[in-house]
Amino acid sequence: MPYFDAASAAPLHPVARQALLASLDEGWADPARLYREGRRARLLLDAAREAAAEAVGCRPDELVFTPSGTRAVHTGVAGALAGRRRAGDRLVVSAVEHSSVLYAGEAHAAAGGTVTEVPVGRSGAVDPEAFGAALDSRTALACLQSANHEVGTEQPVAEVAAACRAAGVPLFVDAAQSLGWGPVPEGWSLLAASAHKWGGPAGVGLLAVRKGVRFAPQGPSDERESGRAPGFENLPAIVAAAASLRAVRAEAAAEGARLRALVDRIRARVPELVPDVEVVGDPVRRLPHLVTFSCLYVDGETLLAELDREGFSVSSGSSCTSATLTPSHVLRAMGVLSEGNVRVSLPAGTAEEDVDRFLAVLPGVVASVRDRLGAPAPAAAAAAEPARSLVVDALGRRCPIPVIELARVIGDVPVGDTVTVLSDDGAARLDIPAWCEMRGQEYVGEEPSPKGGTAYVVRRVA
Amino acid sequence: MPYFDAASAAPLHPVARQALLASLDEGWADPARLYREGRRARLLLDAAREAAAEAVGCRPDELVFTPSGTRAVHTGVAGALAGRRRAGDRLVVSAVEHSSVLYAGEAHAAAGGTVTEVPVGRSGAVDPEAFGAALDSRTALACLQSANHEVGTEQPVAEVAAACRAAGVPLFVDAAQSLGWGPVPEGWSLLAASAHKWGGPAGVGLLAVRKGVRFAPQGPSDERESGRAPGFENLPAIVAAAASLRAVRAEAAAEGARLRALVDRIRARVPELVPDVEVVGDPVRRLPHLVTFSCLYVDGETLLAELDREGFSVSSGSSCTSATLTPSHVLRAMGVLSEGNVRVSLPAGTAEEDVDRFLAVLPGVVASVRDRLGAPAPAAAAAAEPARSLVVDALGRRCPIPVIELARVIGDVPVGDTVTVLSDDGAARLDIPAWCEMRGQEYVGEEPSPKGGTAYVVRRVA
Repeated sequence: MPYFDAASAAPLHPVARQALLASLDEGWADPARLYREGRRARLLLDAAREAAAEAVGCRPDELVFTPSGTRAVHTGVAGALAGRRRAGDRLVVSAVEHSSVLYAGEAHAAAGGTVTEVPVGRSGAVDPEAFGAALDSRTALACLQSANHEVGTEQPVAEVAAACRAAGVPLFVDAAQSLGWGPVPEGWSLLAASAHKWGGPAGVGLLAVRKGVRFAPQGPSDERESGRAPGFENLPAIVAAAASLRAVRAEAAAEGARLRALVDRIRARVPELVPDVEVVGDPVRRLPHLVTFSCLYVDGETLLAELDREGFSVSSGSSCTSATLTPSHVLRAMGVLSEGNVRVSLPAGTAEEDVDRFLAVLPGVVASVRDRLGAPAPAAAAAAEPARSLVVDALGRRCPIPVIELARVIGDVPVGDTVTVLSDDGAARLDIPAWCEMRGQEYVGEEPSPKGGTAYVVRRVA
Repeated sequence: MPYFDAASAAPLHPVARQALLASLDEGWADPARLYREGRRARLLLDAAREAAAEAVGCRPDELVFTPSGTRAVHTGVAGALAGRRRAGDRLVVSAVEHSSVLYAGEAHAAAGGTVTEVPVGRSGAVDPEAFGAALDSRTALACLQSANHEVGTEQPVAEVAAACRAAGVPLFVDAAQSLGWGPVPEGWSLLAASAHKWGGPAGVGLLAVRKGVRFAPQGPSDERESGRAPGFENLPAIVAAAASLRAVRAEAAAEGARLRALVDRIRARVPELVPDVEVVGDPVRRLPHLVTFSCLYVDGETLLAELDREGFSVSSGSSCTSATLTPSHVLRAMGVLSEGNVRVSLPAGTAEEDVDRFLAVLPGVVASVRDRLGAPAPAAAAAAEPARSLVVDALGRRCPIPVIELARVIGDVPVGDTVTVLSDDGAARLDIPAWCEMRGQEYVGEEPSPKGGTAYVVRRVA
């Protein structure tokens, strides 16, 4: 049963499993104690720290273990902001950071700080110049992920790090998605990562803070992990995390090349096999194992359920798959289609046959979902009797219905005239302009609708 | 090799090990995902929550899993204080809480709140009336452990809960040391515990918050664990924690009675076998597996090292064994001797023979340490030529030297006259009065010493 959601959590690597088992017997005692069981635990902890630091590219005393990648981000961002309080209270982040970074930013804003989001282009990458321009003398910290968790696009970390250095601003890099694939480019001041993303166990994050970076841990602490991660160390999991990071890295070049080719196959074949699909993210500067595409006229939740029935586990940034019923902030920031969104992230060892079977199954699954929703046929359009300036009332209907209704009637208005879609579904704000972009129609804009919700105006130009 | 430090961390229970292994294969995926691996993880998480809630005595939706007991305490105290901000900013804690509670209190004080410590008696228990009297209309939260981690004394939780209820103040109970031995008495509002204390794995704490208790989680969060514990769930460890709690509880009555008898043996035999020993903590209202005693004229660090050499792993609250070179705050609050302090906490399954061997080895170990330090012989005293009002300069000497010097000369002054000990070691403040109590001498008081440090004045009355 192929599991294609490694970007959420990778199955445990065999080395992680072995190391975990071995250290359940050797590493359960308190490493702060001086008796033999404590000394043994301390040796394991020290060795794990050295191995992890080597993989990260830092000194062992710059690295602490946290209970998760999320906690590493929260601790790192809060500590760096507090350490630089005298410099100012501005936090600069890319618009496509992981939610843990954005939530840390929200907490900063709630405490009176300011947060500036640097936009990204359609590929999902920030422009280093724009990022540099957002830094000023009041900026306490900048955050940029090494690679995006939803679309796989690599960020220009080295260039942004240079801009940060020039501005005297420390750079926090969330390396959760990339650390298993190789070291982060030089220039970061703080770095966070998460073991279960590379095949290590849950319960372990890494936080590295370069010597010389001002850092003031927030909240209550204790004597463990340099005062940066309170609570009894999760030692067997830490040992397993470090061992598996080393193992995964040793395999990264070969396995990365193999998965990169499989992802290239998906990127090329999906638009050939499935009509009305947008493959998003940078095709070249990207993670080796991850690809995301969106299918017009399809709702993500049904699509995921159908793929699950076929044996494929994938995730989605569509609004209908989120608890808040809003589309992924990453897709929104990129300005790409969010409906029928599918993220495929291949774990190490994925069989080529499974990818081929996915490609064989996908077209039928998408077609059947579209069929049930009454989506327009791929080569639709060409209207019978043109009406002028149609209004489509899709109030109370969820994604992808508003876009389906728009597509169904666009051929009914003459070129030059407009279709206005009334919708109170948040995804429409992203997906109607994205549909226009894909279809070569003109997105005029939105205005409040007198009937409630928003009126999205589209001019037929094609 | 007998390990007698279960109160720091218990070896992994076989059931925890089994459950951990099983859920490494079944529980590595994200329980928030809807595909089969995610659904399987969700089932495991829900079942673990139900099992843990049953053991705690709460509803499953009142309980969240945190990365450690310390994090459960930090989250619980901060969330309860913030939830009751309108009531006031006073936090009331017992003076002998675990450091995680006291550090949470320090963070509260640093943010402008006030913290009141309720003192304890010589047994280590608070007086419920005194605790109730400390509560007022500005009190946001009260904290009381279920049982003390250093001396094993059970606190009067039910009585204090009644006082809190009468005052309208929520009660936070740190149940880390007792939860494996049985449920906490009724009446608590919030409860925290730590899996590795009962034989579960590291990396799992519990936080229960009763419905109706005002609670506002602090810091950045996410959608996991009701917004109270951000970060990817450490699922295999959570499953192992819940399974082992259930297993440990099933064995608690029989094993508790067995260990209680072994501890009673230690409590009775140590003072018979070793001269100048004080066994501390309540002899009856106590944890079944834990006993603490202090040996005059001995430094804890050497004692621990010698016991380790004999194969026994124990811990100590003596100043020389702490990173800060101050005696345990628990022993200080109780006003008992801290020098030569030994905590014995027996893990489940401890063999009777190991306890007997400990009792056989201890007298020789203590005697050899005393010998090396030049401690007075047990039946010492009776001086040759009395001098009057001696001054002993122990400046720059660490525990237990100041007390050893005092004991060496007390017989040199006539009854009614004084010995003044000059010392700049923090432990002397606790241990000189404690020595007077044990020896029936009068502790007059302390004053600044003109030579630096403090002058402790003792009058010979015996």
